[in-house]
Amino acid sequence: MNLKEKIRTIPDFPKKGIMFRDITTLLADPEAMEHTVSLMSERYDAQKVDKVAGIESRGFIFGALLAQRLNAGFIPIRKEGKLPFETVKEEYDLEYGTDCVEIHRDAIDAGDNVVIVDDLVATGGTILASINLIQKLGANVVGVSYVIDLPDVGGREKIREFNPHYLVEFEGE
Amino acid sequence: MNLKEKIRTIPDFPKKGIMFRDITTLLADPEAMEHTVSLMSERYDAQKVDKVAGIESRGFIFGALLAQRLNAGFIPIRKEGKLPFETVKEEYDLEYGTDCVEIHRDAIDAGDNVVIVDDLVATGGTILASINLIQKLGANVVGVSYVIDLPDVGGREKIREFNPHYLVEFEGE
Repeated sequence: MNLKEKIRTIPDFPKKGIMFRDITTLLADPEAMEHTVSLMSERYDAQKVDKVAGIESRGFIFGALLAQRLNAGFIPIRKEGKLPFETVKEEYDLEYGTDCVEIHRDAIDAGDNVVIVDDLVATGGTILASINLIQKLGANVVGVSYVIDLPDVGGREKIREFNPHYLVEFEGE
Repeated sequence: MNLKEKIRTIPDFPKKGIMFRDITTLLADPEAMEHTVSLMSERYDAQKVDKVAGIESRGFIFGALLAQRLNAGFIPIRKEGKLPFETVKEEYDLEYGTDCVEIHRDAIDAGDNVVIVDDLVATGGTILASINLIQKLGANVVGVSYVIDLPDVGGREKIREFNPHYLVEFEGE
């Protein structure tokens, strides 16, 4: 199955010049989603995974499915102010300004093996902040799984030591 | 398994006087999540379900898992401005002001049987708006599945004709 064909490209969203890779066409196709989750989970066949951390909000979709497949706990990484219990936070730079991600302090135990999941890695800013959150809690990031890599933007290189695994890449096209 | 015990209550979040029902403790427990999805899916054993629509963002977690269990497409219902393709919108009233949900116009076909999923129903405002979106596209809402019902708030009564199904209830306590 060619997963790339399941992803739709919308030009000029959210602003002019951006080619937005729209995964909603993939999500709507149950066979393609089954294939996606199988490919993601195979990567961890020989690896004990305790927790899967999904990044708000598209990472929740793939992360929840991967967690269930691996029989691991699912942990949400959210934007600031959404999680109700005690959290740790990590700021990261945007093109203009900063953003912040949070995780519950009791969500992950020291020594846990954790996989981080999102739909796409572009600059890698959110993923790097998420890796820092997991490490602040004393756990090991054993993989970063995502559907779409944008090699022209270069985020993958920044997370090379954390076993990045993606299923499809789109070059500037 | 007592699912209610898997849900943590945080007093005074997001503001004083609110007892916040925190599902992150449920999400972190893979056996409890397996049980949750099994209970949700059993409801549709005798019913053809074409699409499962999850409401941003905790509804994405349970919705994606239910969609996979039912071999149905997953459709995100999102806050305004997040979906890149042509959408239909529905406004709904909040305590102060209004909010808006959107769905892709091509996500659902006329005549589809659709289940709507969220984590919790309180006043029912978001769920009613989501039901309206599905109906605008000519599809049938055959069920509304969610984890937590708050009977004191009364949302469930407003969606009675759409086959509401919840797993746990919390009265004002």
